[in-house]
Amino acid sequence: MTAESSGSLFTVVKIGGGAGIALDHVSDDIAWMTDRGHVPLLVHGGSALTNRLAEQLGHPPEFVTSSSGFTSRRTDRRALEIFQMACASINKSLVERLQARDVNAIGLAGMDGQIWVGPRKDVIRTVQNGRTVVIRDDYTGRVEQVNTLLLETLMRDGYVPVLMPPAISYDGEAINVDADRAAARTAALLHADTLVILSNVPGLLRHFPDESSLIRKIRATDLRTMGEVARDRMKKKVLGAEEALAGGVSRVVFADGRVPHPVRRALEGEGTVIHA
Amino acid sequence: MTAESSGSLFTVVKIGGGAGIALDHVSDDIAWMTDRGHVPLLVHGGSALTNRLAEQLGHPPEFVTSSSGFTSRRTDRRALEIFQMACASINKSLVERLQARDVNAIGLAGMDGQIWVGPRKDVIRTVQNGRTVVIRDDYTGRVEQVNTLLLETLMRDGYVPVLMPPAISYDGEAINVDADRAAARTAALLHADTLVILSNVPGLLRHFPDESSLIRKIRATDLRTMGEVARDRMKKKVLGAEEALAGGVSRVVFADGRVPHPVRRALEGEGTVIHA
Repeated sequence: MTAESSGSLFTVVKIGGGAGIALDHVSDDIAWMTDRGHVPLLVHGGSALTNRLAEQLGHPPEFVTSSSGFTSRRTDRRALEIFQMACASINKSLVERLQARDVNAIGLAGMDGQIWVGPRKDVIRTVQNGRTVVIRDDYTGRVEQVNTLLLETLMRDGYVPVLMPPAISYDGEAINVDADRAAARTAALLHADTLVILSNVPGLLRHFPDESSLIRKIRATDLRTMGEVARDRMKKKVLGAEEALAGGVSRVVFADGRVPHPVRRALEGEGTVIHA
Repeated sequence: MTAESSGSLFTVVKIGGGAGIALDHVSDDIAWMTDRGHVPLLVHGGSALTNRLAEQLGHPPEFVTSSSGFTSRRTDRRALEIFQMACASINKSLVERLQARDVNAIGLAGMDGQIWVGPRKDVIRTVQNGRTVVIRDDYTGRVEQVNTLLLETLMRDGYVPVLMPPAISYDGEAINVDADRAAARTAALLHADTLVILSNVPGLLRHFPDESSLIRKIRATDLRTMGEVARDRMKKKVLGAEEALAGGVSRVVFADGRVPHPVRRALEGEGTVIHA
């Protein structure tokens, strides 16, 4: 073990599920890291595939918008089941790619071994046509606690955890959680040096979707203003970045997941780098 | 820890996926065991749900029969993906039930952490209308090696592993494996005392489906003749039982998974008990 591999450069990589994300390129980079004695931790969600699968299974996706402007998936029991299947499909596809590269990946949902635990939202207040509507049968929540002991034990033994939603509520119910924010919480509680958030854009764009408007560096203190620039799903990524940095992560990088060497490039500072 | 909980009575429970299997009853029994200091290991497949999901997704299930009379799922890449999703859906449904009962379950595919490793079949020779047909793009295999170190580490720390296919081939490919035989291999290599195989019949029936023809006790040496009595999927369960007993498991119990206390009843000898 060199000083570099002692854990001080521990990295959490969040892999987006949008079109064009190159899982083979990501897997190549993870193998490159483990060859050098670094054991990263991966996190992914499954939004895009959930949408397709939900259509195919006759339970089309629905979304709700909170009064604060965040959009979430409407997650009734059937939607939760479909979401779980989609996440698992991506998870196994990643684990297989990593195993084929001699990386001993271990895919886990947040609910497994109480890796991700948090509160389920009792009610969701959404705004529909200007009126507030209350939804009670939704399985959505957020991650507060992370089973760092289990994850550290696995990584010490050389396993690369590949984490996915759902998490588990304090009452033992599966809950849909935002994977970006779950990755941020995990990075903070595992004292990660860097959180890399890969998606299908080059980073934070000042004028979405104009990729030439990429913001290359930004200070954590200036990030809050970006929440207003960020659109749609990027809003939650920005919120996740804020939470990671507030939790002690040194650096968050929003980077392009569509290119060769997406993780290495991100670690070298390509994309939007946010320092604490 | 009492002598009883020292591991000498370690149990592997294989949960069938057929109609009527009561996952809530099974989960109640697992909680009863962990309350008494026993940490069992669970294994399940996903055949029945795979069939339904495959129909819904427009890739209907196909089966092939080998010249020795064993029936297997035809597993091309798409069938493998669907199989993975179905298994994961059952897995998460079990993990959630167990977590709700304060059992710290951890769901894992055999491919995760190289828990189940074995050869992929190069070619499958099937008999169709009396002719031998060779299939090459199939992802089927069997479990030879079990990562007992990982499973023992998890169980020592109080986690209840809930294992499902696919396994991983020596070349790092996901492979569909028979969950009964994978459970048998796992029980043997973990030196389990008892392997309980729950399905939607009361045990081995001399005259299937006449449940009054239940065979209550049988010696391992007489099991081979049962292979001829057993029908369809029961054939592989009998083969699994043979393999478990040959591998050092003291007792295999074929038991009814539809009734209250299915695991406790099996451990008390209800069903078909096969002694080494």
